[in-house]
This record gives sequence, structure tokens and C-alpha cells, in this order.
Amino acid sequence: MKFKIVARILGLLLIFLAVAMLLPIPFSLYYGDSDYIALLISSGISLSVGIIPLLIRKNEKEKKELRAKEGFAVVTLAWIVFSAFGALPFVIDGAIPSYTDAFFETMSGFSATGATILTDVEAMPHGLMFWRSLTHWLGGMGIIVLSLAILPFLGVGGMQLFKAEVPGPVVDKLSPRITETAKILWSVYVLFTAGETILLMLGDMSFFDALCHSFGTMATGGFSTKNASIGSYGSAYIDYVIFIFMVIAGTNFSLHYRMLKGSFRAVWKSEEFRFYISIIIGATLLIGIDVYARNYTNIFETLQYTLFQVAAIITTTGYGTADYETWSSSSQAILFLLMFVGGCAGSTGGGMKVLRFYLLFKFVYSEIVKLIHPQAIVPVRIGGTVVDRKVMTNIAGFFVLFMIITGFGIIIMSYMGLDFPSAAGAVAATINNIGPGLGQVGPTDNYAFIPTGGKWLLSFFMLVGRLEVFTVIILLAPSFWRK
Amino acid sequence: MKFKIVARILGLLLIFLAVAMLLPIPFSLYYGDSDYIALLISSGISLSVGIIPLLIRKNEKEKKELRAKEGFAVVTLAWIVFSAFGALPFVIDGAIPSYTDAFFETMSGFSATGATILTDVEAMPHGLMFWRSLTHWLGGMGIIVLSLAILPFLGVGGMQLFKAEVPGPVVDKLSPRITETAKILWSVYVLFTAGETILLMLGDMSFFDALCHSFGTMATGGFSTKNASIGSYGSAYIDYVIFIFMVIAGTNFSLHYRMLKGSFRAVWKSEEFRFYISIIIGATLLIGIDVYARNYTNIFETLQYTLFQVAAIITTTGYGTADYETWSSSSQAILFLLMFVGGCAGSTGGGMKVLRFYLLFKFVYSEIVKLIHPQAIVPVRIGGTVVDRKVMTNIAGFFVLFMIITGFGIIIMSYMGLDFPSAAGAVAATINNIGPGLGQVGPTDNYAFIPTGGKWLLSFFMLVGRLEVFTVIILLAPSFWRK
Repeated sequence: MKFKIVARILGLLLIFLAVAMLLPIPFSLYYGDSDYIALLISSGISLSVGIIPLLIRKNEKEKKELRAKEGFAVVTLAWIVFSAFGALPFVIDGAIPSYTDAFFETMSGFSATGATILTDVEAMPHGLMFWRSLTHWLGGMGIIVLSLAILPFLGVGGMQLFKAEVPGPVVDKLSPRITETAKILWSVYVLFTAGETILLMLGDMSFFDALCHSFGTMATGGFSTKNASIGSYGSAYIDYVIFIFMVIAGTNFSLHYRMLKGSFRAVWKSEEFRFYISIIIGATLLIGIDVYARNYTNIFETLQYTLFQVAAIITTTGYGTADYETWSSSSQAILFLLMFVGGCAGSTGGGMKVLRFYLLFKFVYSEIVKLIHPQAIVPVRIGGTVVDRKVMTNIAGFFVLFMIITGFGIIIMSYMGLDFPSAAGAVAATINNIGPGLGQVGPTDNYAFIPTGGKWLLSFFMLVGRLEVFTVIILLAPSFWRK
Repeated sequence: MKFKIVARILGLLLIFLAVAMLLPIPFSLYYGDSDYIALLISSGISLSVGIIPLLIRKNEKEKKELRAKEGFAVVTLAWIVFSAFGALPFVIDGAIPSYTDAFFETMSGFSATGATILTDVEAMPHGLMFWRSLTHWLGGMGIIVLSLAILPFLGVGGMQLFKAEVPGPVVDKLSPRITETAKILWSVYVLFTAGETILLMLGDMSFFDALCHSFGTMATGGFSTKNASIGSYGSAYIDYVIFIFMVIAGTNFSLHYRMLKGSFRAVWKSEEFRFYISIIIGATLLIGIDVYARNYTNIFETLQYTLFQVAAIITTTGYGTADYETWSSSSQAILFLLMFVGGCAGSTGGGMKVLRFYLLFKFVYSEIVKLIHPQAIVPVRIGGTVVDRKVMTNIAGFFVLFMIITGFGIIIMSYMGLDFPSAAGAVAATINNIGPGLGQVGPTDNYAFIPTGGKWLLSFFMLVGRLEVFTVIILLAPSFWRK
């Protein structure tokens, strides 16, 4: 492990975080809150600590190129460091007195999970409220990806860093240069965020709330500035605007880029995109029929709430307009399974990703055909090309590992005193980066009551989910540290 | 598909079932019950129907050898036919008036699940009670395996039939001849059943109850002759005898054979066996610590109930001495996960099998190592030999398919009105062939209240679980029926 290079990159990223912490200050001042002080202090601390590794004398003999394993280490550590320092403003201000709670909230922010320990969101001062939503936005498209886009000197080993933060099964390079790809992704992201903000303001939302909710949508995060989340507006217009942008955020961003360049055919040709839309339509129909007579009085209301909730869960945003725990248990079961599906590969959505599920279905079918015709060679194809065996094996391994972690997670959360649906809900809602779960951590509840150990574990799950499991887990393997 | 040969084999097996139906009659007569009439009539019906395909003129030109796909079709159909006709005595006698209920109970019997729709087991006449336990015993080691052992003319395509009924990831041939292997397996099975019966009688159990409970143990079935299952005896001796035989029944029978031939080293050298024992010890410790202060007054009582319940679940027997729903939610979560682990490959236990889990853990680790060292070749090994890639891929596919079926099963059972833990419990308890689940289908409940459609679906899951998924599911693939 080239510890010096790792430390230098982390130092650079920390300075970058210190700058980001200054962005909420105008809002603090505008609304006459005093939380800008905590933001300034935290920014100063982050800056001071970030400079230290840069002062260490460079060892010119060391190669600058990062190996795969260093890429994983840098990215995982960067996310931990960001959450550790990003939590400071909340603690210093006193808005969240417990450091554990502040770390949980910040990791929930950066990982675009949206699980909160706040019992009264609206009591938060505006600077910190903005910071909370900004963590979503920075983490949603990826801190490292952003750094690659705007800090060209990170180009050293940029590909390794990119692959560790965006580890999806298939890398869709939009440009041969990784910094160029990062710039494209972030430009599309900024564009959509601006568009949603304007559309929400047209629906009589304040600029502040519109911006924060757009951050939460495009990152598929879910933090709201309101205690009752999006439901507090009671506006079909706002519901549908956010619904559309949730679906956009859960789509592969390289498709958006292609579409913006005029290639609509690329979008419709994407098997993953069609599968994604089919699941949304299918789940909406199944749940809609179920909740129509039971919970709502007419079809329009049913459609509004069902579409929103299905998109909020599958894209792993986690915004709420309805208390789905009042829906029937079958509708809840469908939502619970959708939690694991998640957004498309290359989107800001969490979960296991639509592409992985699509390929797993094809993989299982190919195994069945192999049993029928033992001599046949049955490759898995997508978009007309054969999926490499190594990629398929990796996806299967991903699924198994994801399930093992979820299983053990449920046992440990049960030890913390949660009943079975709540434990399953808490683990699913964090490892899939959704936010609200089931039972005691349902859409109208929060994570405040979870014991300290549980909050750290769930924070770990959010990290594991955001970095798609392997990037984090390999750091725990003994052979990672062996020479 | 060679329909004529398939029909002839099914006819032969049905005649075999007709003979088996006569075995409970002595018990009916001894206890002065009148249910022997229903058994005789059912036997007559099975015999008459079974003869029909044998009367069709043989087509000498057809090759007698079965292809893989015919093996799968014969075995799946045989299990359905056995349950369909095996249910007749209950309906004809009137002990179970509904045919749906009787089919559920019989499939639960043959598949060694042990889920019951009976609200008062003890009201059942003795002949039918014996028949109910006998279905466990016949299905536990395998109807087809038994047929191969005693009906040499089935040798035609015997290997294909054997592989379809005992589809474990690795075939451990005890003899180059498949009929020889079947004979060995059944001899060991009979020996242990006899041994357990004697030991239970030494604990003051009647011969009838001892035999029925031995059938239920060695098949890892779980039907009891008592309403309160094994708990009704309140005897530590009986609990430990059954505990030991449950562990034996969940062990690979080829290991027993080797041990009986004096090779104790083979047992201890088996990585799967060591993993199996480690899980039992680990789970007992975790649960024991949890329930010690909460539910029991001393260590001996804790150990007695915990060991029994852990073994009853992991081996998928499903006998009960304690109402584990009064245990904490973490202990219940551990038991829920153990349901999926199941017995060893080549045992009578259900579930996904210890060997598959063991290899999946190794597979995931090899995927992690591959990420650290992208150029390395990292095969999965067991017992010093490399596991073939095809086998490993098949196991991964098995796991994915198992989870997909479980997920959809939970949704459908929720539609039937079950809450989330009950739906998850009902699906897990049937697809893993356990019996009791959680919530409304917990250890003190039964399946009587499930709607008709749910009973048929759960019966299907029992079949899917017993034949290890692929054998049944490939019959649903369109390419199975294509020429």
C-alpha cells in the first residue's frame, strides 16, 4: 500500500470539503441564522487537517500510478473522512448534539440514503439544512467523480478511483479520458438539478426548498426540509414533478447524455431502461389495484400516490407522500422487494441495480437451459453482445454477498431490540440507500431511537451500499493487506 | 419427450404406492379403528390407475434410455402423482374432508416438510396417522431412490432419475451401479430408523409413537402423533435422542456409510460436516445466551431447548419442544436464517444445503481476491480438489433462483392476507421443507386457515424445495417442451 499517496489524495479531498462547507453560509446569513459560525469553524478544521499530508515531503521515486487495491482504499477512506468531518457543523452548532447522530446523518447524506435521526427537521437552522441537502447532492453523483471533473491533478490513477466509486457491472465510458467522462456526468446532473428547481418554484415552492428538494431528488437521497416530506405540500403538480425527476435520477446518466445529444433511439434500445420502466409500471398496477378501494377514493389519487411511492422506493430516493404502512401487507411486500432492485447502473440510485437483476434473470434462465441441453453453450447476452463470464460471475457473487450481509445485518439489528419487520426494514433501507424502511423505522418514523451501536452499523451499511459492497468489503479481507 | 416410457414408469410407481398403502392396515386393525377401509379403497384405486399405462403395447423401436429432460419430468410428475393419490385415504375416510387439505398434508408428508392443516392431530385414527408418518419416511430418502433399490427393472435410465431426485451439487457415488448406491442409502436409513425406534421405546414411548416419530426424524419431516409435538413428552431423554437423530439425518448419508465401514476419518475430514456442526454450535451459543436469562431458569434447560430447536430448524425437521415465538426477535431471526441453510448435501434435510452455503462463502471470497489481484486465478476448492466452474455457476444460479422464488412467494402470500412475518415464514417453512414458520404459521399454529389458493401454492413450494428447484422449474421453461 502506497500510504503516502493515499494520504495526499485524502488531504486534497478534505480541502475540497472545506470549500464545500462555505457554500451554505449565504443561506445562513440570508435567513438570519447563527449556524454560519459552526460552518466556518468546521471548514477551518477540515482545511487544517487536510493540509497536513500535503506538507510531507514527496518521495519522487514512488510511482504515481494507483493500483486497483489503492483505488478501493482511497475511495472507501474518502467517504469515511467526508462523513467524519462533514458531521462537525451539526455538532459544533449544537443542532445535533451527539456525534454518533451527526455522523449517521452525514453518512446518510453523502450516501444519498436519506435516513434521518431528526425528530423535527423544520427546527434545523437554514445553513445546516442546506448543508444536509448538499451532502446528498455531492454524494449522489459521487464526490470522487466530481473531484476528477474539477481537480485535474487527481488524474493520477483517476480510472482506478472512478471504478471504485462507480463500480457498476459494465463501465460505459462516454469519453476515452476519465476526467472528460466525469465532466459530462456532472454537467448533465447540474442541468437536471437546475431544471427541477425551476419547475418546483413554478409550483410555489420557495427557492431554498426547491433547491434542497432538487438536491434530494437528483441524488436519489430523500432528505426533505419538511417533517411530512413531500406530502406536506399536498400538491399533485409537485408530486408529479418530483416523480419525473426521481425516474430520471434512477436512469443511467450516459443515456441522458445520449438523449441530450439527440439520440432518442439509444434510450429505447436500452434493455435495462425498458426493464426499469416495466417494473415501475408493473409495480404501480399491482399496488394500485390493491390500494384503490382500500385507501383512496378515485383513480387519479390512487395513481398519484402509487406512482410516487413506487418511484421513490425503486430509485431509492425515499421521499414520501403517503404512509405506505397503512397499505396492505402485499403492497408493502412489493415495496420491500423493490428496495433491493434499486436504480439503473450508472444512475445515482442505490440498491443492487436494475441491470444486475436483469442479468441475473437471464443467468438463471441460461442455467435452466443448460440442464435441458447439457452440451449446449448458453451465453448471457445484452444489447446483442455476450456478457463476459467474469462479469456474470462477479454479479452472482455480488448478489450472494449482498444477501449474506443483509442476513447477518438483520440478526444484529434484532439484537438491538428491533422486531423482525423493523430489523429487516432498517437493514434494507440503509444498505440499499433508501431511507425509510418498515415497522419502527417506517415512513412516518425516524432512526433516533436506534442504540448507538446500531447507528454505527447502519452507517456502515449505507457506505457498503453506496460503494456497491465490494469496494468496502475487500478492505476487510486479510489478503488485501498482505504484500 | 418419450411420453409412453414416462407413463409406464409412473404406472409402475403408482402400483408401488398401492402396496405401500397396505402397510398401515395392521395398525388400524390393532387399534380397532375403521380407517383400514379407506386405505384398502385407495390402494385399489391406485392399483387400477397404475395398471392402465402398462397395458399399452410396447413400442420396441423406442430406445429405453432416458434423456436428462425425461428424468426431470418423470421425477416431478411422480411426486405430484404420489401426493395426488396418497391424499385419497384421508378424503375417503373423512378424517380430512377437503381434497385441497388432504393434498397439502400428503405433499407435506412426502416432501418431509411437516406443515400440517390439522388442528387436532390426536383425533386422527391410527391407520391414517401411520400413513401420514409413512409418507415422510418414503419421501425423506426418496421414493425414486427406494424404487431403484427394490425394483431392478427401473434400472432403465436410473441414473437420470437418481440425479433428478437427489440433485445435490456434487454426486457422491458409493458404487458404480446406481441401484447398488440406492440400496446402500436405504439400508443405512432403515438401520438408523430402527435404532431410534428402540431408543425412544426405552424412554417409555409406545411402539406406534416411537416408530412414527422415528419416521419423522430420519426423514427430517416433523409430523408428530401429538398436538404439542415432542414437547408433549416433557422428557430430556427423548429430547436428546431425537436431537441426535435429527443431526444424523441432516448429515450426508455417504458419510454414515463410510463411518459404519469404520472410516471415522472420512467424517472428520469432511469440510461440509465440520461447517454443519460449527453452525449448530454457533447458533446454539448465540441463541442460548439470549434466551438463558429471558426464558429459562438454568443452563441445562436452556441447552436442552436451544440445541433441540436449532437442530430441528437447520435439519428442516421442524419438531418442537419450545414455542420459539416467545424467544427474542434476534433468536427468531437466527432461526429464520437457519431455515435457508438446511441439511448437508446427500442428507434427508431440506433447505439450500450446508455445502452450497459453504461453497458460496468460498466463491464470494474468491471474487474478492480477484478484485485485489485482477490477474490471479482463484479457484474454489473443497477437500483439496478444485470445484468445477460449471458446478460453482450452477450453485450461484440455484441461490439466485431460490431467492427470486422466495421473494415472489412472499408477495403472493401477502395477497392472501398474511402479514409480512407470516408470509415470509410460510414461504420459508415450505420451500425449505421445515413445517412451522413464523407469525400466524408459527410453531403453535397450523396451516388450516390459509385460503385454498395459498395451500396449492405452498404445496408447490414444498415440491420445489424437496426436488431442489431446478428439477421442477425447468418443466416451466418453454425450451423444455421445444423439440
